[in-house]
Amino acid sequence: MKHKKSYTLGELAKILELELVGDDRCVIDGLATLKSAGAGKLSFLSNPAYTEQLSSCRASVVIIDPKFSDAFAGNKLLSTQPYLSYSRATEIFNTKPISKPSIHISAIVDDSAKIGASVSIAANAVVSADCVIGDGCAIGAGSIISEGCSLGENCELYANVTLYHGITLGDRVIVHSGVVLGADGFGFAFDGEKSVKIHQLGSVRIGDDVEIGAGTTIDRGAIEDTIIEQGVKIDNQVQIGHNCKIGAHSVICGATAIAGSFTMGKYCTMGGASGALGHISIADNVQVSAMSLISQSVKEAGMYSSGTGQMKTSDWKRNIVRFQQLDSLAKRVKELEKRADKVKDSDAT
Amino acid sequence: MKHKKSYTLGELAKILELELVGDDRCVIDGLATLKSAGAGKLSFLSNPAYTEQLSSCRASVVIIDPKFSDAFAGNKLLSTQPYLSYSRATEIFNTKPISKPSIHISAIVDDSAKIGASVSIAANAVVSADCVIGDGCAIGAGSIISEGCSLGENCELYANVTLYHGITLGDRVIVHSGVVLGADGFGFAFDGEKSVKIHQLGSVRIGDDVEIGAGTTIDRGAIEDTIIEQGVKIDNQVQIGHNCKIGAHSVICGATAIAGSFTMGKYCTMGGASGALGHISIADNVQVSAMSLISQSVKEAGMYSSGTGQMKTSDWKRNIVRFQQLDSLAKRVKELEKRADKVKDSDAT
Amino acid sequence: MKHKKSYTLGELAKILELELVGDDRCVIDGLATLKSAGAGKLSFLSNPAYTEQLSSCRASVVIIDPKFSDAFAGNKLLSTQPYLSYSRATEIFNTKPISKPSIHISAIVDDSAKIGASVSIAANAVVSADCVIGDGCAIGAGSIISEGCSLGENCELYANVTLYHGITLGDRVIVHSGVVLGADGFGFAFDGEKSVKIHQLGSVRIGDDVEIGAGTTIDRGAIEDTIIEQGVKIDNQVQIGHNCKIGAHSVICGATAIAGSFTMGKYCTMGGASGALGHISIADNVQVSAMSLISQSVKEAGMYSSGTGQMKTSDWKRNIVRFQQLDSLAKRVKELEKRADKVKDSDAT
Repeated sequence: MKHKKSYTLGELAKILELELVGDDRCVIDGLATLKSAGAGKLSFLSNPAYTEQLSSCRASVVIIDPKFSDAFAGNKLLSTQPYLSYSRATEIFNTKPISKPSIHISAIVDDSAKIGASVSIAANAVVSADCVIGDGCAIGAGSIISEGCSLGENCELYANVTLYHGITLGDRVIVHSGVVLGADGFGFAFDGEKSVKIHQLGSVRIGDDVEIGAGTTIDRGAIEDTIIEQGVKIDNQVQIGHNCKIGAHSVICGATAIAGSFTMGKYCTMGGASGALGHISIADNVQVSAMSLISQSVKEAGMYSSGTGQMKTSDWKRNIVRFQQLDSLAKRVKELEKRADKVKDSDAT
Repeated sequence: MKHKKSYTLGELAKILELELVGDDRCVIDGLATLKSAGAGKLSFLSNPAYTEQLSSCRASVVIIDPKFSDAFAGNKLLSTQPYLSYSRATEIFNTKPISKPSIHISAIVDDSAKIGASVSIAANAVVSADCVIGDGCAIGAGSIISEGCSLGENCELYANVTLYHGITLGDRVIVHSGVVLGADGFGFAFDGEKSVKIHQLGSVRIGDDVEIGAGTTIDRGAIEDTIIEQGVKIDNQVQIGHNCKIGAHSVICGATAIAGSFTMGKYCTMGGASGALGHISIADNVQVSAMSLISQSVKEAGMYSSGTGQMKTSDWKRNIVRFQQLDSLAKRVKELEKRADKVKDSDAT
Repeated sequence: MKHKKSYTLGELAKILELELVGDDRCVIDGLATLKSAGAGKLSFLSNPAYTEQLSSCRASVVIIDPKFSDAFAGNKLLSTQPYLSYSRATEIFNTKPISKPSIHISAIVDDSAKIGASVSIAANAVVSADCVIGDGCAIGAGSIISEGCSLGENCELYANVTLYHGITLGDRVIVHSGVVLGADGFGFAFDGEKSVKIHQLGSVRIGDDVEIGAGTTIDRGAIEDTIIEQGVKIDNQVQIGHNCKIGAHSVICGATAIAGSFTMGKYCTMGGASGALGHISIADNVQVSAMSLISQSVKEAGMYSSGTGQMKTSDWKRNIVRFQQLDSLAKRVKELEKRADKVKDSDAT
């Protein structure tokens, strides 16, 4: 099932709740960037750096902040938050196939599972015993939902997702392909010779409106649960260890690795490929730069970083040798300061 | 199938082989942390930093080192290795559904495959030609075992695991969802214009008691095999390149990336999101910090690190500029030392 | 189906188009390293550092550069590009099972899909509506190809691959297990309280002869497509964000993370676990070291790095403290220079 639609600008202005400056009968059939847009396309200006592209832009309408609107001669939808208005437009012009509510004949659904209304379960998906699947959920092909999982309403699991037993999802949770929720946390006791497994008895609880990117793994807790609070957005290939608690509305960019029992505040941002050690916590509104490691708790909101910045390898090689001598260099500077002070003293005498 | 059980403390003391101080008829039905434990729960004190939680702890019994046992007034199980004793308790109170030995009607098992006794093969799993599956193995839903793989006894593959052809697992190997064993190593010969594929003719051999975390990938060797020795524990989303050899009982934390032909000694630990270059080796008992890169061979046991540590981004920006001038700074210090020496010399004259 | 073959050296010399020095009737049945090779095996010398292994090498033939050929007494195949010749030999002696052209009875292929000649679709694979599968493609067990995907000729998708809707692959594309192509790019508009999803309307286009390693994820574009040009080789667990453009014949090593709208030139190399920020670009022929972060655009070909290099943790701890004081250290050196200049001036007076 597809949703191909076109709208007049008059209709769009109503749906997006924006003021239209221009021809309300003009028909829009899709979105495009400022650069590539042609007739029938809606575009948007969010970053003022692209304002100069407006003069040659051939979009049939541009969503634009009123303060820049003079820069575009064509039809305009005025918005003080153009990127947010654009996000709504992407929903209207979404090209993703819609899954019909139905259970594919090849899907394997245990008799004890409770399946809500308007649920779609695709080919070869498996829903195990004692699962509860809320109204309006869509479960992708080849996805495996193990015993006793509970999905709220309108969740969307793409193909080849894996949920271990007893995982709980809130409403409107989106889970992309390759995600694994609830694998065992990484816990072992060393007996002097070998690592002995600590069985992981907790689970994973995912709040409402969470989105989890492709290939991400979130481990079940050791005794208590791993918790992802509402509104958290997690990109691809993120690893979240057991018993982490990720605060509401935080954003975790791709390839980030978070060790066990890390507690993140609300509205935090972890940059791409960043990391965090376990058993520490960061406050609300902390932002971590790409590929930086949080190795100590952070009590104050703000931006944190680690790393050296990028150099030509030839320069870098010289500098890292110096880095490895940095402590002795600092001591030599201290020594020089002492000697300079002595010279000064002797001058003074 | 579930295993819900409760035990008297008298029974538990026997099973765990620990001395009980307290009421041997007290009934325990699960585990809990010191903070959250209530009646009927067993808890443990492993990290002395939590000793102060004992005074308000309401667990029905605590596994505790005799030297701290005075700090808890309730029932105690005395252990000089409380964390190890706790690991055994997690086995007793494990809540994971047990897979019944049976082959699901939707599983696809090639006629030439040899399936041992008490094997469980879940929905939509595929076992290809010439595979040997040892007694007591459990293969999760949607897992694909390609031609000619050999699994020892009591291996557990969770859902959506992929084994390429000819992979060998020892006994009691645990493989979590999303794992890919035996994909082609990353080898190409450049012909001046394009990369020409080097077909990967080796395989992967996994020793006894290895556990492999969700989403981890271990590539097949170019000519010879990639080898993971017995007792190695690998966390989620670890990448191990072709022809690596990971020494027995080493522990590799999540999101670590190891390039091809890296040789790791026994009892090593790679911290989370750490890395290692290829064609080098590290000795036994080497520990690598989180997000550190091993770029040279290490012959001596010990801890190794790289990186800069975490800073406020505002401070960091100033410091990385200096880092990029570090070689010239060092030279300026040397110059200053010379000048200071001259001053001294001239003073002396 | 297997391809077990042996060849005489005379045959091999013809196939590999190399000059043979030695016995053209000698029979070769496989490949081996210089160290492990025995009778019947072909080996090769690519890295001159291994020349000393030739004296004790028992291979029946060695592919070798004419300038080193004196170092080996046995049969030789002369090649000025021994590694390239070896890559061709791996094709001849490949041990990978060959998939028979056939559609497994358990595969689910939509009636509207166009399936080319000699296509193999393995157990439990799903090919959705409106897909086009080119001649000679092989689709692995459990792989899911969503609506409207298009595969060129002779593509090979291993088991448990996931393609979202509308993805395009060129000819001879190899996709390893666990790969996810076309999941939603990570885009949200913040409305002051929560993140609002930007639906991702673009797709992913993969050029001819691209290989994509196990567990790699490549996101669909926001409006336009994410593009991987011809001949690009991508290792395992690489993350490529929406709207990236990866230039032809570039090589991306394992666990690399590339943020959205990053543009890479042709013939670039990203080392293992390296990273790149979004909305920047690098020129052709740029090489990035392992675990280095590209944080600024690079206009000049060459090697780039970041990081500190590896140290004993005890030394490292002292040095990172100094790093965090580096700006003030540099200022102190400047101060010393001023003072030294004054001393000089006063000497001069």
